[in-house]
Amino acid sequence: RNAGADVSGELVRFEPGMLREILKTAPPEFTQLARNRENSVRIGGRNVVFAPAYGSPFVMDLDKGRRYGTLEDFRNFIKLAQSSPWLHHSGGTICEPVDVPVNKRHLDMVYSLMTTSDKPFLGAITEKDRAQDSVNMARILFGEDRMERDTVIMGNVNTNSPLMIDKVASEAIEVYCGAGQGIVVVPFILSGAMGPVSTAASVAQAIAEGLACAAYSQIVRPGAPFVLGNFLSSMSLKSGAPTFGMPEPVMSNYAIGQIARHLGLPLRCGGSLSASKLPDAQAAAESADSMHSTALAGANFVLHAAGWLEGGLVMSYEKLVIDADRLGMYARMLGGLATDENGLARSAYEEVAHAGHFLGSAHTMANYETAFYESPLSDSESFEQWREGGEKDMQQRAFEYWNRLVGEYERPAIDPATDEALRAYMAKKKESLPDQAY
Amino acid sequence: RNAGADVSGELVRFEPGMLREILKTAPPEFTQLARNRENSVRIGGRNVVFAPAYGSPFVMDLDKGRRYGTLEDFRNFIKLAQSSPWLHHSGGTICEPVDVPVNKRHLDMVYSLMTTSDKPFLGAITEKDRAQDSVNMARILFGEDRMERDTVIMGNVNTNSPLMIDKVASEAIEVYCGAGQGIVVVPFILSGAMGPVSTAASVAQAIAEGLACAAYSQIVRPGAPFVLGNFLSSMSLKSGAPTFGMPEPVMSNYAIGQIARHLGLPLRCGGSLSASKLPDAQAAAESADSMHSTALAGANFVLHAAGWLEGGLVMSYEKLVIDADRLGMYARMLGGLATDENGLARSAYEEVAHAGHFLGSAHTMANYETAFYESPLSDSESFEQWREGGEKDMQQRAFEYWNRLVGEYERPAIDPATDEALRAYMAKKKESLPDQAY
Repeated sequence: RNAGADVSGELVRFEPGMLREILKTAPPEFTQLARNRENSVRIGGRNVVFAPAYGSPFVMDLDKGRRYGTLEDFRNFIKLAQSSPWLHHSGGTICEPVDVPVNKRHLDMVYSLMTTSDKPFLGAITEKDRAQDSVNMARILFGEDRMERDTVIMGNVNTNSPLMIDKVASEAIEVYCGAGQGIVVVPFILSGAMGPVSTAASVAQAIAEGLACAAYSQIVRPGAPFVLGNFLSSMSLKSGAPTFGMPEPVMSNYAIGQIARHLGLPLRCGGSLSASKLPDAQAAAESADSMHSTALAGANFVLHAAGWLEGGLVMSYEKLVIDADRLGMYARMLGGLATDENGLARSAYEEVAHAGHFLGSAHTMANYETAFYESPLSDSESFEQWREGGEKDMQQRAFEYWNRLVGEYERPAIDPATDEALRAYMAKKKESLPDQAY
Repeated sequence: RNAGADVSGELVRFEPGMLREILKTAPPEFTQLARNRENSVRIGGRNVVFAPAYGSPFVMDLDKGRRYGTLEDFRNFIKLAQSSPWLHHSGGTICEPVDVPVNKRHLDMVYSLMTTSDKPFLGAITEKDRAQDSVNMARILFGEDRMERDTVIMGNVNTNSPLMIDKVASEAIEVYCGAGQGIVVVPFILSGAMGPVSTAASVAQAIAEGLACAAYSQIVRPGAPFVLGNFLSSMSLKSGAPTFGMPEPVMSNYAIGQIARHLGLPLRCGGSLSASKLPDAQAAAESADSMHSTALAGANFVLHAAGWLEGGLVMSYEKLVIDADRLGMYARMLGGLATDENGLARSAYEEVAHAGHFLGSAHTMANYETAFYESPLSDSESFEQWREGGEKDMQQRAFEYWNRLVGEYERPAIDPATDEALRAYMAKKKESLPDQAY
């Protein structure tokens, strides 16, 4: 109302152009610092940041099957994200650690994100007090000065679609942006449920909800980093169940990427999404179409980029490393083709005869080590070699691979006084709270 | 030489612009007739035609495993392509029927393509005489008049990369284009082997080889339908083994699509390619990235769009139907978003409250049956439903699905006299040939 909106009860209306005017102070791109500055990320512009999936109550692996997540699982996922060159960010609630009381869980999660990894991360948003704890702990980790000058933590919050911006979302904006930190606001729309059974309408709705939040973030604190989020999917017309990786949300990624560039706001959209119960062909196909469009759409921050199964109910160890490998390929794709003299390779044609081969040519010898993306998981061996190797499918290879990565993990060093201060904050806060199951 | 090229021995050089000038008579788009005219396809422009994989000696299914292909397998694959709305074309050598002598095999294949399906198809190219048999049989099926006026058959042939257009390719062009029929010419380049270890160079080489053949097709017969083919992939830098669905060939699809549009020639590129031995997560991810880029690149004729495994050595029953389902999604994606009044769904917002839901709204009821692509194979049920259903992964569901489709197949009617004439041609030709194993 103070900014000029027409408010009646809970309904806020905006004159055309008003939101666009207010959100002009939002930065088109910004850096989220990591405590290891080499892992700091640039969000917006031509940059893309991949983070693991977020929010699943269940976890799964080939050995132990599907089960509720624990703090140990949560930390294992942070370790795997830390070990991947293609996961630039730890994300936040990679899985719900249900062995910790729900009202204390955020403290263990934020502490684990801060200490198990030295990559950037997200804080809690489920209640105002938990968001505040996250920001307070970030202040301990990064210091008051950095906190004032830089983005060191972000929250990720959904609107209550259709067209409702509730207490959780508005308080998360207030806490994070109020501290000069970043917020990702995400209209979560399954077309046919939280939006009309139409992709174009759902995109328009998502933009409307997102822009209202973008403007609010700038009212809270002009210049606060805001990421325009989007999570749009379709449903099965037979059962009403959510579907993922289908052509309609794929198209919405392309549309929303164009709109975000037009608006000049950093974009979160897409991810490696699937409704499959297993890291099988369904999961891979749905995830690939979803992620391919996410990458080409120009998404800047991609939550759910690895690990997601079963519509987000399950975080899969195997799928996390399978997806992370594919992320390396998307990163390579986004790098484009070299068309310089070496790329056009005229010298190779002077060396190799017509119908000859380039395997031993000087150009090949000079370039073969970096010419192509080398996947650690895709099997390109002959059938006979593959059979001798035990006929392992992608899921089995991924199982062995993530176990090796967790085994090889080394905890990044942290200043003992900072670690102690974080533990003290967490212990004191926990003492003040009764255990709460949910 | 007659057309103005500089020829010395086997080396033919062209002045800049010469090939472009000669190939101007090639149609930017054309129709390949099917014997059921409802299945005729338009190739070029904004149209896309999907066909199954081509050329594999082995076949595979979940029950019988990996084995050499037979004529029964070959016919089963035609039946599956016939049954899919997303396979617009039967392709050609879907698998090698190794139970038929190699020098007679083309007759059974062409006859099966003509009679088991009423969709368009490809003829043989491996020897001039076999190409001629294919064209002769097409003349019987479609009649002399149609043959003169329309495209009723095409051949698909590779150049001998790098930069060699051999007897097989030039004779295929002569036979098919000489009869006014279509030819697809495909430089098959694994970068590092038949081209430099550089994607940009391999693209340039493919275009050079393709344009030389395009010009030759127009010298043979001005106006003959020519499809500029491209089959480019990368290799493992550790083993030298071919790799598929990797970012470098994905980028080459996008590049080659732009070049083909610039040249005004119909394009064949891409497909659902993979090096995997199974229809697992690797196969699906590689195929999806390959096919997504193929679709967006604007490919007009997509051989290998379904079924391909193990770098083309295996045609998989399960993967054929899995891929065909995904093709439906790409077709949907290429259809774009409806942004008319119904698509923008203003009325739905007038009906549904903020934070309400659209499930029962009038707009949803009016649109839900066609709003989203409905996949016959992707499972979007709850975990509990999926468990009760037997915990089937994509491969198992695909096995059941293709068996059902083969069981439900009905042979399209054919004029008995035509059928008899085709059989007589085949029998007479077979008599003239000794059995030949390879």
